[in-house]
Amino acid sequence: MQKEFDDLLEKNFDIKFNDESLLDEAFTQASYVNEHPGKNLKFYERIEFLGDAVYELVVSDYIYRRYPKLPQGRLTRLRAAMVNEHSFSSFARECHFDKYIRLGKGEEKAHARDRDSLLCDIFESFIGAVYLDQGMKPVVKFCHQVIFPKLDEGWFDEFFDHKTELQELAQADGPVDIEYHLLDENGPDNDRRFKVSVTVDDVEKGVGEGHSKKNAEQGAAKQAIKKYTE
Amino acid sequence: MQKEFDDLLEKNFDIKFNDESLLDEAFTQASYVNEHPGKNLKFYERIEFLGDAVYELVVSDYIYRRYPKLPQGRLTRLRAAMVNEHSFSSFARECHFDKYIRLGKGEEKAHARDRDSLLCDIFESFIGAVYLDQGMKPVVKFCHQVIFPKLDEGWFDEFFDHKTELQELAQADGPVDIEYHLLDENGPDNDRRFKVSVTVDDVEKGVGEGHSKKNAEQGAAKQAIKKYTE
Repeated sequence: MQKEFDDLLEKNFDIKFNDESLLDEAFTQASYVNEHPGKNLKFYERIEFLGDAVYELVVSDYIYRRYPKLPQGRLTRLRAAMVNEHSFSSFARECHFDKYIRLGKGEEKAHARDRDSLLCDIFESFIGAVYLDQGMKPVVKFCHQVIFPKLDEGWFDEFFDHKTELQELAQADGPVDIEYHLLDENGPDNDRRFKVSVTVDDVEKGVGEGHSKKNAEQGAAKQAIKKYTE
Repeated sequence: MQKEFDDLLEKNFDIKFNDESLLDEAFTQASYVNEHPGKNLKFYERIEFLGDAVYELVVSDYIYRRYPKLPQGRLTRLRAAMVNEHSFSSFARECHFDKYIRLGKGEEKAHARDRDSLLCDIFESFIGAVYLDQGMKPVVKFCHQVIFPKLDEGWFDEFFDHKTELQELAQADGPVDIEYHLLDENGPDNDRRFKVSVTVDDVEKGVGEGHSKKNAEQGAAKQAIKKYTE
Protein backbone atom coordinates (compact mmCIF):
# COMPACT_ATOMS: atom_id res chain seq x y z
CA MET A 1 0.00 0.00 0.00
CA GLN A 2 2.81 2.37 1.00
CA LYS A 3 4.76 1.44 -2.13
CA GLU A 4 1.64 1.93 -4.26
CA PHE A 5 1.11 5.41 -2.78
CA ASP A 6 4.77 6.36 -3.26
CA ASP A 7 4.52 5.32 -6.91
CA LEU A 8 1.31 7.29 -7.37
CA LEU A 9 2.84 10.46 -5.93
CA GLU A 10 5.94 10.14 -8.06
CA LYS A 11 4.09 9.25 -11.25
CA ASN A 12 1.26 11.79 -10.96
CA PHE A 13 2.96 14.68 -9.16
CA ASP A 14 6.68 14.07 -9.44
CA ILE A 15 6.89 14.09 -5.63
CA LYS A 16 9.25 11.70 -3.84
CA PHE A 17 9.53 12.04 -0.06
CA ASN A 18 12.94 12.11 1.59
CA ASP A 19 11.39 11.47 4.97
CA GLU A 20 8.62 8.91 4.52
CA SER A 21 7.57 9.28 8.16
CA LEU A 22 6.13 12.72 7.33
CA LEU A 23 3.88 11.19 4.70
CA ASP A 24 2.83 8.46 7.14
CA GLU A 25 1.98 11.05 9.79
CA ALA A 26 0.03 13.17 7.29
CA PHE A 27 -2.21 10.26 6.32
CA THR A 28 -2.79 8.77 9.77
CA GLN A 29 -5.94 9.52 11.75
CA ALA A 30 -5.96 9.52 15.55
CA SER A 31 -8.23 6.46 15.57
CA TYR A 32 -5.46 4.41 13.91
CA VAL A 33 -2.87 5.59 16.44
CA ASN A 34 -5.18 4.62 19.30
CA GLU A 35 -5.52 1.11 17.89
CA HIS A 36 -1.75 0.69 17.69
CA PRO A 37 -0.50 1.76 21.12
CA GLY A 38 3.19 1.52 21.92
CA LYS A 39 4.20 2.03 18.28
CA ASN A 40 4.75 5.74 18.89
CA LEU A 41 2.72 6.67 15.81
CA LYS A 42 1.68 10.24 15.12
CA PHE A 43 -1.57 11.48 13.60
CA TYR A 44 -2.03 14.20 11.02
CA GLU A 45 -3.39 17.14 13.02
CA ARG A 46 -0.19 19.09 13.68
CA ILE A 47 0.96 18.79 10.07
CA GLU A 48 -2.50 19.84 8.94
CA PHE A 49 -2.16 23.00 11.08
CA LEU A 50 0.97 23.90 9.15
CA GLY A 51 -0.36 22.81 5.74
CA ASP A 52 -3.32 25.14 6.15
CA ALA A 53 -1.01 28.17 6.37
CA VAL A 54 1.26 26.93 3.57
CA TYR A 55 -1.64 26.44 1.18
CA GLU A 56 -3.14 29.81 2.06
CA LEU A 57 0.10 31.59 1.18
CA VAL A 58 0.60 29.68 -2.07
CA VAL A 59 -2.94 30.58 -3.16
CA SER A 60 -2.61 34.21 -2.00
CA ASP A 61 0.69 34.67 -3.81
CA TYR A 62 -0.70 33.17 -7.01
CA ILE A 63 -3.89 35.22 -7.21
CA TYR A 64 -2.09 38.40 -6.09
CA ARG A 65 0.28 38.14 -9.06
CA ARG A 66 -2.17 36.71 -11.55
CA TYR A 67 -4.81 39.42 -11.05
CA PRO A 68 -2.76 42.59 -10.65
CA LYS A 69 -5.80 44.85 -10.70
CA LEU A 70 -8.09 42.86 -8.44
CA PRO A 71 -8.95 44.87 -5.31
CA GLN A 72 -8.40 43.40 -1.85
CA GLY A 73 -12.06 42.56 -1.25
CA ARG A 74 -12.28 40.41 -4.32
CA LEU A 75 -8.90 38.78 -3.68
CA THR A 76 -10.15 37.86 -0.22
CA ARG A 77 -13.37 36.37 -1.60
CA LEU A 78 -11.51 34.41 -4.24
CA ARG A 79 -9.07 33.05 -1.66
CA ALA A 80 -11.97 32.01 0.56
CA ALA A 81 -13.45 30.10 -2.38
CA MET A 82 -10.16 28.32 -2.98
CA VAL A 83 -9.55 27.59 0.71
CA ASN A 84 -12.76 25.79 1.38
CA GLU A 85 -13.77 22.37 2.70
CA HIS A 86 -15.83 21.52 -0.35
CA SER A 87 -12.93 22.32 -2.67
CA PHE A 88 -10.36 20.48 -0.55
CA SER A 89 -12.34 17.25 -0.32
CA SER A 90 -12.83 17.24 -4.09
CA PHE A 91 -9.12 17.77 -4.66
CA ALA A 92 -8.29 14.96 -2.23
CA ARG A 93 -10.60 12.56 -4.09
CA GLU A 94 -9.26 13.63 -7.46
CA CYS A 95 -5.72 12.85 -6.24
CA HIS A 96 -6.93 9.47 -4.84
CA PHE A 97 -5.76 10.47 -1.36
CA ASP A 98 -8.87 8.91 0.19
CA LYS A 99 -7.52 5.43 -0.62
CA TYR A 100 -4.38 5.87 1.50
CA ILE A 101 -5.66 7.25 4.80
CA ARG A 102 -4.87 5.06 7.81
CA LEU A 103 -8.04 4.74 9.90
CA GLY A 104 -9.05 2.79 12.98
CA LYS A 105 -11.58 -0.02 12.45
CA GLY A 106 -14.47 1.92 13.97
CA GLU A 107 -13.86 4.92 11.74
CA GLU A 108 -13.52 2.64 8.71
CA LYS A 109 -16.88 1.09 9.48
CA ALA A 110 -18.39 4.56 9.92
CA HIS A 111 -17.23 5.43 6.37
CA ALA A 112 -14.86 8.16 7.58
CA ARG A 113 -12.88 7.61 4.38
CA ASP A 114 -15.70 9.24 2.41
CA ARG A 115 -16.26 12.09 4.89
CA ASP A 116 -15.63 15.54 3.40
CA SER A 117 -14.24 16.95 6.65
CA LEU A 118 -11.60 14.20 6.90
CA LEU A 119 -10.62 14.50 3.23
CA CYS A 120 -10.29 18.22 3.73
CA ASP A 121 -7.92 17.67 6.68
CA ILE A 122 -5.89 15.12 4.73
CA PHE A 123 -5.50 17.44 1.77
CA GLU A 124 -4.06 20.12 4.07
CA SER A 125 -1.82 17.68 5.91
CA PHE A 126 -0.47 16.41 2.58
CA ILE A 127 0.47 20.00 1.67
CA GLY A 128 2.10 20.39 5.10
CA ALA A 129 4.09 17.18 4.70
CA VAL A 130 5.43 18.18 1.28
CA TYR A 131 6.41 21.59 2.70
CA LEU A 132 8.21 20.06 5.69
CA ASP A 133 10.01 17.56 3.49
CA GLN A 134 10.99 19.81 0.59
CA GLY A 135 9.94 23.41 1.17
CA MET A 136 7.64 25.66 -0.83
CA LYS A 137 8.66 24.89 -4.41
CA PRO A 138 7.06 21.45 -4.84
CA VAL A 139 3.90 22.71 -3.12
CA VAL A 140 3.66 25.54 -5.64
CA LYS A 141 4.26 23.08 -8.48
CA PHE A 142 1.57 20.75 -7.13
CA CYS A 143 -0.91 23.64 -6.94
CA HIS A 144 -0.08 24.70 -10.49
CA GLN A 145 -0.91 21.18 -11.61
CA VAL A 146 -3.98 20.40 -9.50
CA ILE A 147 -5.56 23.63 -8.27
CA PHE A 148 -4.81 26.68 -10.38
CA PRO A 149 -6.08 25.28 -13.73
CA LYS A 150 -9.47 25.03 -12.02
CA LEU A 151 -9.64 28.82 -11.93
CA ASP A 152 -9.88 28.84 -15.73
CA GLU A 153 -12.30 25.94 -15.74
CA GLY A 154 -14.74 28.06 -13.68
CA TRP A 155 -14.47 25.70 -10.68
CA PHE A 156 -14.76 28.53 -8.14
CA ASP A 157 -17.43 30.50 -10.02
CA GLU A 158 -20.28 29.27 -7.88
CA PHE A 159 -18.83 31.29 -5.01
CA PHE A 160 -19.18 34.54 -6.92
CA ASP A 161 -21.88 36.89 -7.92
CA HIS A 162 -20.28 38.27 -11.05
CA LYS A 163 -22.83 41.04 -11.50
CA THR A 164 -22.08 42.51 -8.09
CA GLU A 165 -18.36 42.25 -8.67
CA LEU A 166 -18.55 43.92 -12.05
CA GLN A 167 -20.42 46.79 -10.42
CA GLU A 168 -17.72 47.13 -7.74
CA LEU A 169 -14.91 47.02 -10.25
CA ALA A 170 -16.43 49.32 -12.84
CA GLN A 171 -17.42 51.90 -10.24
CA ALA A 172 -14.05 51.94 -8.49
CA ASP A 173 -13.14 55.25 -10.10
CA GLY A 174 -16.58 56.85 -10.02
CA PRO A 175 -20.19 56.16 -11.01
CA VAL A 176 -20.87 54.37 -14.30
CA ASP A 177 -23.95 53.07 -16.07
CA ILE A 178 -24.09 49.26 -16.34
CA GLU A 179 -26.82 47.70 -18.49
CA TYR A 180 -27.70 44.16 -19.57
CA HIS A 181 -29.30 43.63 -23.00
CA LEU A 182 -31.10 40.52 -24.24
CA LEU A 183 -29.54 39.83 -27.66
CA ASP A 184 -31.21 36.58 -28.54
CA GLU A 185 -33.59 33.94 -27.22
CA ASN A 186 -34.23 30.67 -29.03
CA GLY A 187 -34.74 26.91 -28.79
CA PRO A 188 -37.77 24.87 -27.65
CA ASP A 189 -39.44 25.61 -24.29
CA ASN A 190 -37.64 22.74 -22.51
CA ASP A 191 -34.21 23.84 -23.85
CA ARG A 192 -34.46 27.58 -24.14
CA ARG A 193 -31.18 29.52 -24.70
CA PHE A 194 -30.56 33.17 -23.84
CA LYS A 195 -27.81 35.46 -25.06
CA VAL A 196 -27.11 38.66 -23.14
CA SER A 197 -24.56 41.46 -23.45
CA VAL A 198 -23.41 43.89 -20.79
CA THR A 199 -22.43 47.49 -21.48
CA VAL A 200 -20.58 49.91 -19.22
CA ASP A 201 -21.36 53.50 -20.19
CA ASP A 202 -22.78 52.20 -23.48
CA VAL A 203 -19.62 50.28 -24.43
CA GLU A 204 -20.07 46.51 -24.74
CA LYS A 205 -17.77 44.72 -22.27
CA GLY A 206 -19.00 41.13 -22.40
CA VAL A 207 -21.46 38.59 -23.78
CA GLY A 208 -22.86 35.52 -22.06
CA GLU A 209 -25.17 32.62 -22.84
CA GLY A 210 -27.24 30.33 -20.67
CA HIS A 211 -30.46 28.45 -20.08
CA SER A 212 -31.86 31.39 -18.14
CA LYS A 213 -31.54 35.14 -18.51
CA LYS A 214 -29.88 35.21 -15.08
CA ASN A 215 -27.17 32.72 -16.09
CA ALA A 216 -26.51 34.55 -19.33
CA GLU A 217 -26.11 37.84 -17.41
CA GLN A 218 -23.65 36.22 -15.00
CA GLY A 219 -21.65 34.96 -17.97
CA ALA A 220 -21.59 38.39 -19.58
CA ALA A 221 -20.47 40.00 -16.29
CA LYS A 222 -17.75 37.38 -15.87
CA GLN A 223 -16.37 38.16 -19.33
CA ALA A 224 -16.46 41.89 -18.58
CA ILE A 225 -14.62 41.39 -15.25
CA LYS A 226 -11.73 39.78 -17.13
CA LYS A 227 -11.22 43.06 -19.00
CA TYR A 228 -10.91 44.92 -15.72
CA THR A 229 -8.61 42.50 -13.94
CA GLU A 230 -6.22 40.85 -16.39
CA MET B 1 10.89 61.50 5.28
CA GLN B 2 11.43 58.64 2.82
CA LYS B 3 15.18 58.77 3.43
CA GLU B 4 14.59 58.80 7.20
CA PHE B 5 12.39 55.71 6.92
CA ASP B 6 14.89 53.88 4.69
CA ASP B 7 17.61 54.59 7.25
CA LEU B 8 15.42 53.38 10.10
CA LEU B 9 14.63 50.10 8.33
CA GLU B 10 18.25 49.49 7.47
CA LYS B 11 19.59 50.44 10.89
CA ASN B 12 16.98 48.67 13.02
CA PHE B 13 16.10 45.66 10.86
CA ASP B 14 18.86 45.36 8.27
CA ILE B 15 16.22 45.69 5.55
CA LYS B 16 16.98 47.64 2.38
CA PHE B 17 14.36 47.65 -0.35
CA ASN B 18 15.34 46.94 -3.94
CA ASP B 19 12.02 48.27 -5.20
CA GLU B 20 11.13 51.34 -3.12
CA SER B 21 7.72 51.58 -4.79
CA LEU B 22 6.61 48.50 -2.85
CA LEU B 23 7.43 50.23 0.41
CA ASP B 24 5.58 53.35 -0.75
CA GLU B 25 2.53 51.32 -1.65
CA ALA B 26 2.60 49.45 1.66
CA PHE B 27 2.52 52.71 3.65
CA THR B 28 -0.04 54.62 1.59
CA GLN B 29 -3.67 54.81 2.62
CA ALA B 30 -6.46 55.17 0.03
CA SER B 31 -7.23 58.69 1.38
CA TYR B 32 -3.77 59.87 0.28
CA VAL B 33 -4.20 58.38 -3.20
CA ASN B 34 -7.56 60.14 -3.55
CA GLU B 35 -5.95 63.48 -2.69
CA HIS B 36 -3.26 62.99 -5.36
CA PRO B 37 -5.20 62.03 -8.48
CA GLY B 38 -3.32 61.48 -11.74
CA LYS B 39 -0.15 60.37 -9.95
CA ASN B 40 -1.09 56.71 -10.40
CA LEU B 41 -0.37 55.98 -6.73
CA LYS B 42 -1.37 52.68 -5.15
CA PHE B 43 -2.64 52.09 -1.64
CA TYR B 44 -1.69 49.29 0.72
CA GLU B 45 -4.71 46.98 0.66
CA ARG B 46 -3.56 44.44 -1.92
CA ILE B 47 -0.12 44.09 -0.34
CA GLU B 48 -1.77 43.73 3.06
CA PHE B 49 -3.83 40.83 1.67
CA LEU B 50 -0.60 39.04 0.80
CA GLY B 51 1.26 40.06 3.97
CA ASP B 52 -1.48 38.53 6.09
CA ALA B 53 -0.84 35.09 4.55
CA VAL B 54 2.95 35.49 4.69
CA TYR B 55 2.92 36.37 8.38
CA GLU B 56 0.52 33.54 9.21
CA LEU B 57 2.85 30.99 7.62
CA VAL B 58 5.97 32.40 9.28
CA VAL B 59 4.28 32.22 12.68
CA SER B 60 2.82 28.76 12.02
CA ASP B 61 6.16 27.36 10.90
CA TYR B 62 7.93 28.82 13.92
CA ILE B 63 5.55 27.55 16.59
CA TYR B 64 5.17 24.16 14.84
CA ARG B 65 8.92 23.58 15.11
CA ARG B 66 9.48 25.27 18.44
CA TYR B 67 6.78 23.31 20.28
CA PRO B 68 7.10 19.81 18.82
CA LYS B 69 4.67 18.30 21.30
CA LEU B 70 1.98 20.98 21.25
CA PRO B 71 -1.30 19.54 19.96
CA GLN B 72 -3.13 21.18 17.07
CA GLY B 73 -5.75 22.89 19.23
CA ARG B 74 -3.16 24.74 21.25
CA LEU B 75 -1.07 25.60 18.19
CA THR B 76 -4.19 27.12 16.66
CA ARG B 77 -4.94 29.17 19.79
CA LEU B 78 -1.35 30.37 20.02
CA ARG B 79 -1.35 31.37 16.37
CA ALA B 80 -4.61 33.26 16.86
CA ALA B 81 -3.00 35.18 19.74
CA MET B 82 -0.03 36.08 17.57
CA VAL B 83 -2.15 37.03 14.55
CA ASN B 84 -4.30 39.56 16.25
CA GLU B 85 -5.15 43.22 15.74
CA HIS B 86 -4.05 44.21 19.22
CA SER B 87 -0.66 42.55 18.77
CA PHE B 88 -0.12 43.96 15.27
CA SER B 89 -0.83 47.55 16.23
CA SER B 90 1.59 47.31 19.15
CA PHE B 91 4.30 45.88 16.89
CA ALA B 92 3.70 48.66 14.35
CA ARG B 93 4.11 51.33 17.07
CA GLU B 94 7.20 49.64 18.49
CA CYS B 95 8.77 49.71 15.01
CA HIS B 96 7.75 53.39 14.59
CA PHE B 97 5.75 52.52 11.48
CA ASP B 98 2.96 54.91 12.54
CA LYS B 99 5.20 57.87 11.73
CA TYR B 100 5.62 56.94 8.06
CA ILE B 101 2.07 56.23 6.90
CA ARG B 102 0.89 58.48 4.06
CA LEU B 103 -2.59 59.73 4.92
CA GLY B 104 -5.06 62.14 3.35
CA LYS B 105 -5.67 65.39 5.26
CA GLY B 106 -9.09 64.33 6.52
CA GLU B 107 -7.77 61.07 7.90
CA GLU B 108 -4.83 62.87 9.47
CA LYS B 109 -7.22 65.24 11.24
CA ALA B 110 -9.31 62.26 12.40
CA HIS B 111 -6.17 60.81 14.06
CA ALA B 112 -6.13 57.74 11.78
CA ARG B 113 -2.39 57.49 12.47
CA ASP B 114 -3.18 56.35 16.02
CA ARG B 115 -5.97 53.98 15.03
CA ASP B 116 -5.26 50.35 15.93
CA SER B 117 -7.05 49.00 12.85
CA LEU B 118 -4.90 51.08 10.49
CA LEU B 119 -1.67 50.19 12.30
CA CYS B 120 -2.67 46.55 12.09
CA ASP B 121 -3.16 46.85 8.32
CA ILE B 122 0.16 48.66 7.90
CA PHE B 123 2.04 46.03 9.87
CA GLU B 124 0.71 43.34 7.54
CA SER B 125 1.35 45.38 4.41
CA PHE B 126 4.95 45.97 5.56
CA ILE B 127 5.39 42.19 5.84
CA GLY B 128 3.86 41.78 2.38
CA ALA B 129 6.18 44.39 0.88
CA VAL B 130 9.31 42.77 2.33
CA TYR B 131 8.14 39.39 1.01
CA LEU B 132 7.46 40.76 -2.48
CA ASP B 133 10.81 42.54 -2.56
CA GLN B 134 13.03 39.85 -1.06
CA GLY B 135 11.08 36.66 -0.35
CA MET B 136 10.56 34.79 2.91
CA LYS B 137 13.99 34.94 4.51
CA PRO B 138 14.07 38.60 5.65
CA VAL B 139 10.47 38.28 6.89
CA VAL B 140 11.50 35.34 9.05
CA LYS B 141 14.51 37.30 10.29
CA PHE B 142 12.33 40.31 11.11
CA CYS B 143 9.91 38.11 13.07
CA HIS B 144 12.80 36.52 14.99
CA GLN B 145 13.87 40.00 15.99
CA VAL B 146 10.53 41.68 16.71
CA ILE B 147 7.86 39.04 17.35
CA PHE B 148 9.20 35.71 18.56
CA PRO B 149 11.12 37.01 21.61
CA LYS B 150 7.74 38.21 22.88
CA LEU B 151 6.70 34.58 23.33
CA ASP B 152 9.31 34.25 26.08
CA GLU B 153 8.40 37.61 27.54
CA GLY B 154 4.85 36.33 28.14
CA TRP B 155 3.37 38.83 25.66
CA PHE B 156 0.70 36.39 24.43
CA ASP B 157 -0.08 34.92 27.84
CA GLU B 158 -3.23 36.94 28.37
CA PHE B 159 -4.83 34.90 25.60
CA PHE B 160 -4.33 31.67 27.49
CA ASP B 161 -5.76 29.91 30.44
CA HIS B 162 -2.70 27.95 31.48
CA LYS B 163 -4.52 25.77 33.97
CA THR B 164 -6.91 24.47 31.32
CA GLU B 165 -4.06 23.90 28.91
CA LEU B 166 -2.00 22.02 31.45
CA GLN B 167 -4.97 19.77 32.06
CA GLU B 168 -5.34 19.10 28.32
CA LEU B 169 -1.66 18.39 27.87
CA ALA B 170 -1.13 16.27 30.97
CA GLN B 171 -4.23 14.17 30.25
CA ALA B 172 -3.43 13.58 26.58
CA ASP B 173 -2.30 10.02 27.33
CA GLY B 174 -4.87 9.20 29.99
CA PRO B 175 -6.28 10.53 33.25
CA VAL B 176 -3.88 12.14 35.74
CA ASP B 177 -4.24 13.89 39.06
CA ILE B 178 -3.38 17.61 38.96
CA GLU B 179 -3.16 19.52 42.24
CA TYR B 180 -2.20 23.07 43.26
CA HIS B 181 -0.54 23.63 46.65
CA LEU B 182 -0.12 26.93 48.47
CA LEU B 183 3.57 26.98 49.49
CA ASP B 184 3.84 30.43 50.97
CA GLU B 185 1.86 33.60 51.60
CA ASN B 186 3.46 36.78 52.93
CA GLY B 187 3.73 40.57 52.79
CA PRO B 188 1.36 43.28 54.07
CA ASP B 189 -2.36 43.21 53.17
CA ASN B 190 -1.95 45.79 50.39
CA ASP B 191 0.98 43.88 48.86
CA ARG B 192 0.28 40.25 49.56
CA ARG B 193 2.38 37.64 47.70
CA PHE B 194 1.40 34.03 47.04
CA LYS B 195 3.59 31.10 46.04
CA VAL B 196 1.96 28.01 44.60
CA SER B 197 3.24 24.71 43.19
CA VAL B 198 1.48 22.32 40.84
CA THR B 199 1.89 18.56 40.94
CA VAL B 200 0.90 16.00 38.34
CA ASP B 201 0.40 12.57 39.90
CA ASP B 202 2.22 13.88 43.00
CA VAL B 203 5.33 15.00 41.07
CA GLU B 204 6.01 18.73 41.22
CA LYS B 205 6.00 20.20 37.72
CA GLY B 206 6.03 23.95 38.32
CA VAL B 207 6.02 26.82 40.80
CA GLY B 208 4.47 30.26 40.38
CA GLU B 209 4.20 33.50 42.29
CA GLY B 210 1.70 36.34 42.18
CA HIS B 211 -0.40 38.91 44.00
CA SER B 212 -3.32 36.51 44.06
CA LYS B 213 -3.59 32.76 44.45
CA LYS B 214 -5.12 32.63 40.98
CA ASN B 215 -2.16 34.41 39.38
CA ALA B 216 0.31 32.20 41.22
CA GLU B 217 -1.52 29.08 39.99
CA GLN B 218 -1.46 30.34 36.40
CA GLY B 219 2.29 30.89 36.74
CA ALA B 220 2.83 27.40 38.12
CA ALA B 221 0.76 25.89 35.30
CA LYS B 222 2.70 27.89 32.71
CA GLN B 223 5.99 26.53 34.03
CA ALA B 224 4.63 22.99 33.99
CA ILE B 225 3.41 23.38 30.39
CA LYS B 226 6.97 24.14 29.31
CA LYS B 227 8.03 20.69 30.51
CA TYR B 228 5.38 19.09 28.30
CA THR B 229 5.98 21.11 25.18
CA GLU B 230 9.66 21.91 24.87
